Amino acid sequence: MTANPTLVEALRGSAVESAHRGAWAVVDADGDLVASAGDIDRPIFPRSAVKLLQALPLVDSGAAERYGLNAEQLAIACASHNGEPRHVAVAAAMLAAAGVDEAALECGAHWPYRDVVQREMAAAGQLPGALHNNCSGKHAGFVCLGCLLAGDNDKHAFLSGYVKPEHPVMREVSDAIEATTGWRLADAPRGTDGCSIPTYAVPLRQLALGFARTATGIGLREGRARAAKRLMAAVAEHPFMVGGSGRFDTRVMERLGERVFCKVGAEGVYCAAFPKSGLGVAVKMDDGGTRACEVVMAALIQRFVRLDAAEHGFVQAFADQPLVNWNGIEVGRLRWAA
Amino acid sequence: MTANPTLVEALRGSAVESAHRGAWAVVDADGDLVASAGDIDRPIFPRSAVKLLQALPLVDSGAAERYGLNAEQLAIACASHNGEPRHVAVAAAMLAAAGVDEAALECGAHWPYRDVVQREMAAAGQLPGALHNNCSGKHAGFVCLGCLLAGDNDKHAFLSGYVKPEHPVMREVSDAIEATTGWRLADAPRGTDGCSIPTYAVPLRQLALGFARTATGIGLREGRARAAKRLMAAVAEHPFMVGGSGRFDTRVMERLGERVFCKVGAEGVYCAAFPKSGLGVAVKMDDGGTRACEVVMAALIQRFVRLDAAEHGFVQAFADQPLVNWNGIEVGRLRWAA
Repeated sequence: MTANPTLVEALRGSAVESAHRGAWAVVDADGDLVASAGDIDRPIFPRSAVKLLQALPLVDSGAAERYGLNAEQLAIACASHNGEPRHVAVAAAMLAAAGVDEAALECGAHWPYRDVVQREMAAAGQLPGALHNNCSGKHAGFVCLGCLLAGDNDKHAFLSGYVKPEHPVMREVSDAIEATTGWRLADAPRGTDGCSIPTYAVPLRQLALGFARTATGIGLREGRARAAKRLMAAVAEHPFMVGGSGRFDTRVMERLGERVFCKVGAEGVYCAAFPKSGLGVAVKMDDGGTRACEVVMAALIQRFVRLDAAEHGFVQAFADQPLVNWNGIEVGRLRWAA
Repeated sequence: MTANPTLVEALRGSAVESAHRGAWAVVDADGDLVASAGDIDRPIFPRSAVKLLQALPLVDSGAAERYGLNAEQLAIACASHNGEPRHVAVAAAMLAAAGVDEAALECGAHWPYRDVVQREMAAAGQLPGALHNNCSGKHAGFVCLGCLLAGDNDKHAFLSGYVKPEHPVMREVSDAIEATTGWRLADAPRGTDGCSIPTYAVPLRQLALGFARTATGIGLREGRARAAKRLMAAVAEHPFMVGGSGRFDTRVMERLGERVFCKVGAEGVYCAAFPKSGLGVAVKMDDGGTRACEVVMAALIQRFVRLDAAEHGFVQAFADQPLVNWNGIEVGRLRWAA
């Protein structure tokens, strides 16, 4: 793998303790490269950073209409959430609207990511199910799409195996990624994601193009452009649904509203759409770490989104963060290094 | 920072998803370099990987004798433990032996690292204290040393601020690191560790030398050599104390006994002593990630420790690990790449 540049440094005292290399691309809807660092032409697995693209068919197909999904439900269809009680309730309501329940989900179960939620559940004697999976909202969206596609067939029989690449639900999802990013997935390296759906390797340049297109609607057919707009508006209205308490995506979108749609993915991936400037962004840290890609995203928001001084300061607190020890002493910084 | 070589790759399907760069050194007790990769002369913060060296004065001073510390207690003095009930009890007993209690600890409190322990505590309505801090055993050792050094002075007054670099306890600890590694700390970059004690940047080459010396006793004065031997024997007898359930250090030392002493540190550091071959080892991952440094340590154990076929297979399971998703499907590998 090429040695990408160091984008983020972790300092302890005044010395650099660790460093994170990576690459990023900012592209407009015509596919013109606005700015970049590192190798943006090597295909990378975008993981959960493309959940917005994966949710396009839910709206575009008419399934969201059919089942009367509200903005909160559309927002969680694009989420990697904390498994907090409201997330679980909203995902469950989506399934109920389509006439199925948690048993339809094929994402697997895990304890909520957020420690405090785990402890609250343990104290209440609860165990996690598929609804607590950070992907349960996305999967509830897939299930709603599947229920629509099932037509007159038995829903449950049709839904079975919806996570497989060749299932009609996953074909719709892959088509949406291919159409937005302009990258042919049939020849792309394919892996299996944490929630068991396929993930296809796509270059950062093309991922950024995909988000520039969703940001602007340019280059998309009308149904997809409308779906993108509706999903981004839903997320801007309910940023808590996309992540949850304390999460970067939630905090940034709560503050900046419709100017930023951003979404983290596993293994150090980030994608964003900046609708006001018509730009799409994609980031990948070589080492797969999350802490660094948040710093990169903060720095790119500062550079490519119009912010007032207070907003700039708010974002700066992510681009150059204190590292605090167990006694609350600041022992270092995690900061943008480029 | 120099581009160190890629030591570990994370694969998804058959494609490399993420990669971890770093450096490592294997040195004998004469200071001769046996093997290495990357930049081993840049000072790095060893963090908790040098807890064995930091515990030398506890034994060397006579404090361990004075307070009648047993092997389990000596082992936890070298630990970054999970905060499981046995860890908490053993650290508490050390403090009691010296006539003080948890209030003497200056490491700060945090919830145990291990999720299941957090949930068990939450279910029992418990909150974490300083004894749950992964460093509580090391700090209990510092407190025992401090109680001895206090002599006729009031123990509590003397102990206050024992984490500060200029405190007599911390001077003893720094002297031990300087003497074993042969690196002058007065001029070294200094940071504050997670548990509030100082951490000094030392090159991997010198850290490896320090562990070759503790492995063999060569180059150490008699008291320190004896202390090193006693501490390593204590850890070999009670490897659970050093980490806990599921932890790499614990699992490897349970299996390989006195042939390997290994200890992880924060930000991707690993140190080890291989007493039978007289070697010391030090590893630092550039990105500060823990998952990769465990893979590197496993690969170095395979290369520099005499193992039978079954033991080789046991260690291989760490050097080339399956990555499994929420449905238990193997989706990739984390493996030694060098």
